[in-house]
Amino acid sequence: MSVTIQLTPQAELSADIPIALGKARHPQYGRYLDELKPGQVFEHPRGFTFTTSNMLTFARTFMQANPLYLNSQYARAHGFDDLPASAQMVFNVTLSLGVQNDSEKAIANLGYYQVQFLRPVYPGDTLRAFTKVLERKDRGPDKPGITRIRTVSVNQRDELVLQYERKIMVGWRGARPPTTPAPDATVAFPSDDTPQLQLPLTGETVSCGLTGPNTWFADFAPGDIIVHANGRTITEEHMALTYLVGNSHPLHFDRLFSTAQSGKMSGEPIVYGGLVFAWLEGLASRDVSENAVWELGFTEGYHTQPAFAGDTVGALSRILAVEDVAGADGYGLVSMQLIGVKNITAAAALEKYGADLFVKEDTKRDAGKDKIADKIFEIERRLLIKRRPR
Amino acid sequence: MSVTIQLTPQAELSADIPIALGKARHPQYGRYLDELKPGQVFEHPRGFTFTTSNMLTFARTFMQANPLYLNSQYARAHGFDDLPASAQMVFNVTLSLGVQNDSEKAIANLGYYQVQFLRPVYPGDTLRAFTKVLERKDRGPDKPGITRIRTVSVNQRDELVLQYERKIMVGWRGARPPTTPAPDATVAFPSDDTPQLQLPLTGETVSCGLTGPNTWFADFAPGDIIVHANGRTITEEHMALTYLVGNSHPLHFDRLFSTAQSGKMSGEPIVYGGLVFAWLEGLASRDVSENAVWELGFTEGYHTQPAFAGDTVGALSRILAVEDVAGADGYGLVSMQLIGVKNITAAAALEKYGADLFVKEDTKRDAGKDKIADKIFEIERRLLIKRRPR
Amino acid sequence: MSVTIQLTPQAELSADIPIALGKARHPQYGRYLDELKPGQVFEHPRGFTFTTSNMLTFARTFMQANPLYLNSQYARAHGFDDLPASAQMVFNVTLSLGVQNDSEKAIANLGYYQVQFLRPVYPGDTLRAFTKVLERKDRGPDKPGITRIRTVSVNQRDELVLQYERKIMVGWRGARPPTTPAPDATVAFPSDDTPQLQLPLTGETVSCGLTGPNTWFADFAPGDIIVHANGRTITEEHMALTYLVGNSHPLHFDRLFSTAQSGKMSGEPIVYGGLVFAWLEGLASRDVSENAVWELGFTEGYHTQPAFAGDTVGALSRILAVEDVAGADGYGLVSMQLIGVKNITAAAALEKYGADLFVKEDTKRDAGKDKIADKIFEIERRLLIKRRPR
Repeated sequence: MSVTIQLTPQAELSADIPIALGKARHPQYGRYLDELKPGQVFEHPRGFTFTTSNMLTFARTFMQANPLYLNSQYARAHGFDDLPASAQMVFNVTLSLGVQNDSEKAIANLGYYQVQFLRPVYPGDTLRAFTKVLERKDRGPDKPGITRIRTVSVNQRDELVLQYERKIMVGWRGARPPTTPAPDATVAFPSDDTPQLQLPLTGETVSCGLTGPNTWFADFAPGDIIVHANGRTITEEHMALTYLVGNSHPLHFDRLFSTAQSGKMSGEPIVYGGLVFAWLEGLASRDVSENAVWELGFTEGYHTQPAFAGDTVGALSRILAVEDVAGADGYGLVSMQLIGVKNITAAAALEKYGADLFVKEDTKRDAGKDKIADKIFEIERRLLIKRRPR
Repeated sequence: MSVTIQLTPQAELSADIPIALGKARHPQYGRYLDELKPGQVFEHPRGFTFTTSNMLTFARTFMQANPLYLNSQYARAHGFDDLPASAQMVFNVTLSLGVQNDSEKAIANLGYYQVQFLRPVYPGDTLRAFTKVLERKDRGPDKPGITRIRTVSVNQRDELVLQYERKIMVGWRGARPPTTPAPDATVAFPSDDTPQLQLPLTGETVSCGLTGPNTWFADFAPGDIIVHANGRTITEEHMALTYLVGNSHPLHFDRLFSTAQSGKMSGEPIVYGGLVFAWLEGLASRDVSENAVWELGFTEGYHTQPAFAGDTVGALSRILAVEDVAGADGYGLVSMQLIGVKNITAAAALEKYGADLFVKEDTKRDAGKDKIADKIFEIERRLLIKRRPR
Repeated sequence: MSVTIQLTPQAELSADIPIALGKARHPQYGRYLDELKPGQVFEHPRGFTFTTSNMLTFARTFMQANPLYLNSQYARAHGFDDLPASAQMVFNVTLSLGVQNDSEKAIANLGYYQVQFLRPVYPGDTLRAFTKVLERKDRGPDKPGITRIRTVSVNQRDELVLQYERKIMVGWRGARPPTTPAPDATVAFPSDDTPQLQLPLTGETVSCGLTGPNTWFADFAPGDIIVHANGRTITEEHMALTYLVGNSHPLHFDRLFSTAQSGKMSGEPIVYGGLVFAWLEGLASRDVSENAVWELGFTEGYHTQPAFAGDTVGALSRILAVEDVAGADGYGLVSMQLIGVKNITAAAALEKYGADLFVKEDTKRDAGKDKIADKIFEIERRLLIKRRPR
């Protein structure tokens, strides 16, 4: 059926409607600590439709070098139905969809844990996201608390695509007005504690000249440190990119908001961390993940310093483990650390800080070490990488 | 058939062709006041093909929160054939297509009137635009005059998609060379004085968790004022966005041109007003139009101050009227004012200026009121909004 | 077939893996002069899939006015299977694909020669690129040398799409570590010395109102100088655009790298020349190529000064030759110079420098003339342009 409306000239109304300031309302999004209850499930707004072009643009913007995310012909030759969205894009979009409920009132994003990518996202797929509040740690009435949440995204067939946990620091509401409530309807939380990843890979390693000669599975051994040559200067572009992935936290694009913050967060808009991670991953990609066919996941991810427009970021990787994969002769698993620095080249940072660069920042106090102010990010990744074709 | 050309090495020619400065020409676009004749019809150049990805990018860039423009699955569930382009994108593109003929020589864009959206624009559609000069008001030989024009866009099936009127301030040509003439061919002007809007809506309100709990038809009552929480800092991105929608006025992207202007327009490139409107509409969207299924139109739209890169814009809405729609039980019409401010939060602007914020700027002198320098935009909108599902 | 992996919680590993600085490696890309051997062939990494949306975005970003690149309906009416990618995009992408092997260690891009566009690139096509080293000119052990290379791109059917030569200035490796070697595998170099261009044109000139009245074949005569009215201020957007086309040279997006250079190249990141060329071509397009149906090629292209964020560029064209095309009554060939200037309008540059603006910069010393510091680019183009419909 359809709806039919006769369009008539639009009468000017505003002068005739009395202006009553008492009828003003101030909708607020995000949740204060008091509003987060363990067990609570949020269905996040909007959803996000993926397209080939926007997937390509994301991969290129963040300096991706893996042809899997840049070249449809290459992706299909490996067994994928079409170009898959990069793990970085799926992660950024899912996290951003949750901001309006989870973290638009957050003071700090404390960490990413047990991020797992469960199936490919293809052009035309639409993701929706859900969050379950797992835990709320109060630290007293005058201190912000910490909440641990689990977020998942599903595609239009309700199949799980991504799941992860985050810890977020959030303040108490205090005298502030409450935020817009979540819908009353109780929704189920889709999640899988023993997920099985099924990839449509051909099983044979496709040989081709579109990747370099030094980035096959056998080229990585535990302990290897790879210093990525190029850096990337972040410009004010980050404000637009924040909303392009759907992130609604004003700290990232509203200078009136960011300058009104107190303490270390006050000043220019802070680059949304997911974008920083994506740039670092892209800078590392031609040295470590050019021949990856899947990113299994991340854990222990921390933004140890904020980034701002004008900062130049650089990256280093350190190999942590290599494993065979049962039933998949052509591939192996590589675990690695990814470290980000800013306003110093990766090579200079390694020279300056040596081994300390790879020590988790939040363990440094106990170890009697100084934190590294030039370091902005640390995470552990786990990738499925092709073996060198015979 | 086809054309075959044997490619041979390209000979270097420039050194052999005499350089004759007398053969220089300076093509100029736009129209001076003397060149605009009531009754004249311009067929605008280029046309504009819409794609899913570019529609999604536009919606996200301008912070759209209505899933209708972000989520193909949601759009189809409501009865649309595919993701529709947002009203903001259709308006921005149509206006921009007309700039080369209508306003590339304009000094100021005075207002938008009776903007009507007549049918959905889908991926793959190509819009072309036409303008008819309705009126030319001379204010003496040494003063710029005002022209009133009517512009429409049609799709590839020549069906009307959008129509509106604009008033523009334009200077006399004087001693300046004439602009590039419009083609001789007389073209018909497609227009519809009694348009009927037919929307492919299912007629039932689709219930889903992708929108918030407070933005259904029943949540709005005349007089309600809604202060939108977040602002958006505009960066130099606006220069690229101007041409992305097809607007060719150099005031928006050519610093040599903008700094050579006299008076208040002189300085940094001015943000194209259509982009400012789109950001304001986006900032308002999660509070007022998340559940809208159609934007019927706008009227009395004025850019009361220019915006520049670096400005942070914020928005407020005021509900003007709510109406039932005959034969469409699931929907209602909501009319509202949209007000934009800059470099002050919407909340602070309401506190500072109170009711005066909602009074049309061009009526203030007669009412003995001061104009509000922080206010950048005002318009009245009319939206078709879903009723809360039972 | 498929690969199945049981996902288990990702153990934190980094603290248990000893940090051995001796296992650090520093992969380097590009080639030093010593590493470039005439006869050598590089297969370039990644490849690049074209999409309608990204082609439209490229055309609009660079201010293209030819509807052929903006309007699918128009492109099909002329005989093309679909919207073709603009010559500028195909050139920029092909050149950028080669940077990692050809020029990521280059000091300067000296010139473009015999650029030939051999067939349309359509949405869904994937280009790969190859380079053959033609010549290496050493100028002594303490001076950078010059290499001449030939690059081609092919589509997914291995059909040649573009071929051209470049000269690049590259330094000796000296004590620096070698770059990542090219794969051992010898690859054939696809190339065509007597290419035949076959265009799917209808052969009849389609009349329509989407282009202006003054840009048909008959409107151009040798010696004509066309001063393009608008300029474009380049913003920091150029850093993102560089990687969007796939160019990996850090000089364009890594401020730590650019400021560490010595001499005239030291400072802010330099705009990748391909982008500058694309903007100049776009600025010229509504005056000279609105009615073009094919860009046959370019030659003698030189970036005579670098451009930086904040610069405003302008363009002039000078017609060099007009020719009939055997067997294609509806079209003619127009050769023209394209000249770019910065931080001066094109009109002011013509007034200031007169005929010297069109004299090749590298011939000026011999002619006893000064180089023009405001001039940034010069090239000769050859276009197939529609004749005015009867």
